[in-house]
Amino acid sequence: MTRRGAHAVPDLVARAREGDPAAVARLITLVEDASPLLREVMSALGPDAGRAHVLGITGAPGVGKSTSTNALVAGMRRAGKRVGVLAIDPSSPFSGGALLGDRVRMGDHALDRDVYIRSMGARGHLGGLAWSTPQAVRVLDAAGCDVVVLETVGVGQSEVEVAGLADTTLVLLAPGMGDGIQAAKAGILEIGDVYAVNKADREGADRTRRELRTMLTMAERRDGAWRPPVLQTVASTGQGIDELLAELDRHAAWLRESGELARRRTVRARREVEAIALAALRERWGRADAGADLDALAERVVTGEVDPYAAADELLADGRSFG
Amino acid sequence: MTRRGAHAVPDLVARAREGDPAAVARLITLVEDASPLLREVMSALGPDAGRAHVLGITGAPGVGKSTSTNALVAGMRRAGKRVGVLAIDPSSPFSGGALLGDRVRMGDHALDRDVYIRSMGARGHLGGLAWSTPQAVRVLDAAGCDVVVLETVGVGQSEVEVAGLADTTLVLLAPGMGDGIQAAKAGILEIGDVYAVNKADREGADRTRRELRTMLTMAERRDGAWRPPVLQTVASTGQGIDELLAELDRHAAWLRESGELARRRTVRARREVEAIALAALRERWGRADAGADLDALAERVVTGEVDPYAAADELLADGRSFG
Repeated sequence: MTRRGAHAVPDLVARAREGDPAAVARLITLVEDASPLLREVMSALGPDAGRAHVLGITGAPGVGKSTSTNALVAGMRRAGKRVGVLAIDPSSPFSGGALLGDRVRMGDHALDRDVYIRSMGARGHLGGLAWSTPQAVRVLDAAGCDVVVLETVGVGQSEVEVAGLADTTLVLLAPGMGDGIQAAKAGILEIGDVYAVNKADREGADRTRRELRTMLTMAERRDGAWRPPVLQTVASTGQGIDELLAELDRHAAWLRESGELARRRTVRARREVEAIALAALRERWGRADAGADLDALAERVVTGEVDPYAAADELLADGRSFG
Repeated sequence: MTRRGAHAVPDLVARAREGDPAAVARLITLVEDASPLLREVMSALGPDAGRAHVLGITGAPGVGKSTSTNALVAGMRRAGKRVGVLAIDPSSPFSGGALLGDRVRMGDHALDRDVYIRSMGARGHLGGLAWSTPQAVRVLDAAGCDVVVLETVGVGQSEVEVAGLADTTLVLLAPGMGDGIQAAKAGILEIGDVYAVNKADREGADRTRRELRTMLTMAERRDGAWRPPVLQTVASTGQGIDELLAELDRHAAWLRESGELARRRTVRARREVEAIALAALRERWGRADAGADLDALAERVVTGEVDPYAAADELLADGRSFG
């Protein structure tokens, strides 16, 4: 670690705690870059972790995720909450430069000092979203955010993955998109804590809500389990947003009272710790100066000198001297 | 390991070497199930590895992958080659039971003892395709297959992944599907060693071939590098299949002469060894009787007692006693 780095981290963390947007942005860039300084950053941030409520917002393209996020953030601001927004696109490379674009996109909140908005991608990253997202959340948490919104920009598998990173998952649908097979296929019946049929001024909204409710009712739930409500919104006009915010608050309260919050966060921390450990190992195995160089082992597998299991054993045996 | 297992493996491997289809099927099922016996199987198979040429066949849904595979296998059989076909569907769970369905699908070769046909999925598998595919290839190799065909059944990312598992990658297109943005987006310009515009009796085939050639010409290549040919086929009638087979043979010869074959196989073995090692570690970390139980570490991260990097250090330090 450079002398400059050693001094920079405590200063950055102190400024982030005071809510300095430039310091928050810099710390999240360190997460994006998988900087070696992160170890020190996380050690300094640690004791703060866990105050902010993490809200995941997901749904197929075209349901109005950005508009809904914007409307929900406006409502949270009216309630006096500080909000962080991470727009997560697992298919795009990291890009801190997307900040300006985000501020334009989230036009209503671009000049609001109590809203942090940031894009995060993960393609090609060693540890993936399970690695980077909790660390970015920890930064926003320390900066005093009451809520951190994770908005999925991607499609498909990423929706399910983002749900695993949130305390509360809001699934958005639009009229006509809620038919049974489609919903079941996307796995959205398992991941949602709260559902909203957005664009509810369009034809078919009532039917989509009814079908979704039927499907959710059929899913077996334990006694005392949370029963996901299904709301209707028109995010572009703000219709139904207050009711949606109330349901999200009700779920947050239930999470705390039922003990489910601690359980979900433990699962998340487990994946994060595992991702950090695996990334460290892979990084080490890729180094030519390591005892059991992975490239040399691979060559011996190709020539038939060792089988892949024996090679893996050698690699792991070398891990004994890790650290 | 059970006494029965210890005796079963050498017998199975011996029978697979003699080309017994039931023994081959049983060994690939062990791969699918991530059986603990695999370590012994791979040790016994090891010295045989690397004779079979691995041909990946990929392309968007609707280009005629199954029909093309069928036609190519028929041509290989006419040339007296033994062929193994692995139909890879990363989105489906493992299913050895798909065998019957495969034999129906590959109707022409269902009763041919010198063609092995098998489905493989990977969803939820610890190590993924990088883990399972090379091991299944090794089984087919030992059983005397001259060629192992990996046919992608899935879409999207899996196409690129399968390319990384093959010696030669054949990319299939169909007329009208070859426009620049689409091809570049799918990354197919980087992965193909040989291209075929299938359904070449349809309108637009010449244009698709021309556009693809232009795009491939623009891609920078080193001196002495392979220049991917673009062919036209009508797999359903067999038109162009002999020419395609000749180009595939030419690529296989180039791979051997240029040293690229050894390089590609080393990259693949590297990923395989890494995947085996990581799967072993994750399995170990998930056990409650391990020294540093991952669940206990995760709880301490949630309460703020340790930060995730310190927890990862504890996990890895515990890895010293691995083995």
